[in-house]
Amino acid sequence: MASTTPKVLTVENMNPHIREMEYAVRGRLAIRAEELRDELAQGATNLPFNKVVSCNIGNPQQLNQKPITFFRQVVSLCENPDLLEPEKESLVSQLYPIDAIQRARQILKDIGASIGAYSHSQGVPALRKSVANFIAERDGYPADPNSLYLTQGASAGVQNILSILTQNEKTGILIPIPQYPLYSATLTLLGATPVPYYLDEESGWSLDVEEIRKTVHEARSKGTDVRALVIINPGNPTGQCLEASNMQDILTFCHEERLLLMADEVYQTNIYEPEQRPFVSFKKALMEHPQRDTIELVSFHSISKGMIGECGRRGGYFECCNLDKGVTEQLYKMASVSLCPNVSGQIMTALMVTPPKQGDPSYELYQKEMTGLYESLRRRSKKLEAVFNAMEGVTCQPAMGSMYLFPRIRLPEKALAKAAELNQKPDAFYCDQMLEATGVCVVPGSGFAQKDGTWHFRSTFLPEESLFDEFCGHLKDFHANFMAKYK
Amino acid sequence: MASTTPKVLTVENMNPHIREMEYAVRGRLAIRAEELRDELAQGATNLPFNKVVSCNIGNPQQLNQKPITFFRQVVSLCENPDLLEPEKESLVSQLYPIDAIQRARQILKDIGASIGAYSHSQGVPALRKSVANFIAERDGYPADPNSLYLTQGASAGVQNILSILTQNEKTGILIPIPQYPLYSATLTLLGATPVPYYLDEESGWSLDVEEIRKTVHEARSKGTDVRALVIINPGNPTGQCLEASNMQDILTFCHEERLLLMADEVYQTNIYEPEQRPFVSFKKALMEHPQRDTIELVSFHSISKGMIGECGRRGGYFECCNLDKGVTEQLYKMASVSLCPNVSGQIMTALMVTPPKQGDPSYELYQKEMTGLYESLRRRSKKLEAVFNAMEGVTCQPAMGSMYLFPRIRLPEKALAKAAELNQKPDAFYCDQMLEATGVCVVPGSGFAQKDGTWHFRSTFLPEESLFDEFCGHLKDFHANFMAKYK
Repeated sequence: MASTTPKVLTVENMNPHIREMEYAVRGRLAIRAEELRDELAQGATNLPFNKVVSCNIGNPQQLNQKPITFFRQVVSLCENPDLLEPEKESLVSQLYPIDAIQRARQILKDIGASIGAYSHSQGVPALRKSVANFIAERDGYPADPNSLYLTQGASAGVQNILSILTQNEKTGILIPIPQYPLYSATLTLLGATPVPYYLDEESGWSLDVEEIRKTVHEARSKGTDVRALVIINPGNPTGQCLEASNMQDILTFCHEERLLLMADEVYQTNIYEPEQRPFVSFKKALMEHPQRDTIELVSFHSISKGMIGECGRRGGYFECCNLDKGVTEQLYKMASVSLCPNVSGQIMTALMVTPPKQGDPSYELYQKEMTGLYESLRRRSKKLEAVFNAMEGVTCQPAMGSMYLFPRIRLPEKALAKAAELNQKPDAFYCDQMLEATGVCVVPGSGFAQKDGTWHFRSTFLPEESLFDEFCGHLKDFHANFMAKYK
Repeated sequence: MASTTPKVLTVENMNPHIREMEYAVRGRLAIRAEELRDELAQGATNLPFNKVVSCNIGNPQQLNQKPITFFRQVVSLCENPDLLEPEKESLVSQLYPIDAIQRARQILKDIGASIGAYSHSQGVPALRKSVANFIAERDGYPADPNSLYLTQGASAGVQNILSILTQNEKTGILIPIPQYPLYSATLTLLGATPVPYYLDEESGWSLDVEEIRKTVHEARSKGTDVRALVIINPGNPTGQCLEASNMQDILTFCHEERLLLMADEVYQTNIYEPEQRPFVSFKKALMEHPQRDTIELVSFHSISKGMIGECGRRGGYFECCNLDKGVTEQLYKMASVSLCPNVSGQIMTALMVTPPKQGDPSYELYQKEMTGLYESLRRRSKKLEAVFNAMEGVTCQPAMGSMYLFPRIRLPEKALAKAAELNQKPDAFYCDQMLEATGVCVVPGSGFAQKDGTWHFRSTFLPEESLFDEFCGHLKDFHANFMAKYK
């Protein structure tokens, strides 16, 4: 009888918001990719490929990108402060450059206790000060360490801000289409109302303020309390990078429409056309706007992206501008229930924004590593873009920034029919076929939402450069075979 | 005019659940303690103490507890894999024992990528396997790595499970009174219904199943869908440790009343009367119960407590037994939105459960460190308990486990009147006075909830042993002065 006892907690009676939540970046296809990886690891020889390549997620070190040496040296010393004892100096100085040793000493002094202690819930004050100095230098305008909250990756910060914004199910948040699905998933979890606005693919995924205004008015006329605008810049999955003048319009729009602005800027150093389209932070744009003291802005950054790519460490921060003082106190209370962001992530966040300076022993190597990674990412982005644009029925906007391309695919009727037969969306069908044929895992456009009747997928351009031509070749062959089969 | 523009987001229109949430462990008093610490750091000489002692939170390394050498050595090598290159071996082997080097190599191999990569959202499979082996060895019953979810501290796991349990505002969760306020705070955030049950102070904070049954029936008769029971064992803030026979009764009760059991077992190695009252895990108790295949259990563990005390790293795990398969898939989806728990915390979790073995080069030092910390904690617990019990109007149950004592204070009428005049709860008034007089920060019992008309506070016994007598002296003097003033 025991085995037939119904469960207390079931999919039917659990939190319905969690049940309805979707997150395709690590969804069904990614789970299938892991199964295939396990099969290969267990010696399977019946698959048409010999490795699984995860292009579904911006996870550079998983694809063998080397971490930045200086950063890791400092963290390693902070973990093992015994190495900083005077009697070990003669040995340690042969393994670590002097500036890494000095930096680790300084960080441990700043923390004032072991890195194994809970820190201030907003993050160690001295580390926040480093971040504030970085922002001031980046933008030319000061930043207040007390307005900074260090977080376990940008995702955790975004979730906290969306949560505090959500008064009830009528609370509306403007999110771009296509969008990184953290936003839609979190709004579903919170029971808030996503208010989608569209980026225009043909003009390079540009953002038209007057289009968004129509969306806001329409949603408000239906009773939605639209109160915040999410902008991902550089774009994910789209790779666009906003122009400074466009950003001023967006700020004016936020002021006029009474919207808090959430600026997801985690790809701010992944900029591939820096002359034509440099990155401008929304903090800087705000400081140059007439309503600089009024518009409420929260901007997010992360150690997971850029050239540093320390995803697994979970570190990042958000900066609050013009937020109500009571609201920031509530943000502190929220943070305090989780005690603190992990201290190793906090340290890496501070290191990211205070790299070795010219003249420091580690400067040359740091520069070489950063430039090497940057140039390589840029080359790979251009190469993959060209590959996509050369495919039959595929068009792809360039990545001005980020780690992704988001090509549009036009599938033959027979492929659409086959997908319908399998009860799959056409882009999901295409991506499934790609995975099973090549071992390459990408994410269907439907995981990010897209204009009705269009189909896309998102791929990183992170496979190692030495294997990149082979990777591109697999995609080309797959696409040609797919088109031949279904034409 | 700009300065008078009302804010978009205000305390009045924000998420009301966050506004209502309370978390006293890092609440008003702890914020005041930080202010005092800052004043001292800036050279203040007008305070009646020369340092602030944070006994409000179990944060041993903040009070100078040394981390376990072997664990830190391994993590430090994982951070800087350059040290594992053959050409560095002659130097590195002078700084690190061979078993730390071997362990770091093994962990990096298990991870299969840099520790800077996102891992599996449930945690690295090989590290989960280490945890499963530990559970099997601890309990004498197997554990499945696929039923384990590595987390960023136990708190994150508890929040996830409470979230998935919450179907709507009628969902009721039984929580002990007094309780660690993560539970009440999270239920407030989720809009679920806390269903309090009382621990009996006089009998050592024991738990009477028939009392809980009454509570369940009463709550259900009022329309609350009571579906889970939270047990903190060893107790926080109360320090009690459950007897094996009592645990069997609790499991039977869960089966009869159709309750999922959440067992918070983060203090499982902080056991101070191991002969009379050893720790028994609920997993083991379940395996010895007739309904072992039926009762749904989620149990939590952490790297923040025990002798390891790596709070700032944020690591831990939960194990699911008998959960619906669909529910565990939903738990995976939830975890995937946050991508993964930080990998450094995952590594530390695996290290905690696979320490050096007899015969390993690091075994002796590891044993010495662990035993030293344990014996010292036990001595301090007994000493502080005696100090409290010798105070006028104070009684204190012994800590059979955990890191806390929770003395009951009986305050003179004049003190109650003074508290009322200040619009403070009597225990909050007492703790405020203690902080201002001694620099010692504890948490009022009202932060954990307590039987009406009784007043308590929670203090850790974590101040360093060399300073412990001085610390106890400050508390004694304060109490004597307080009683003299208000008697």
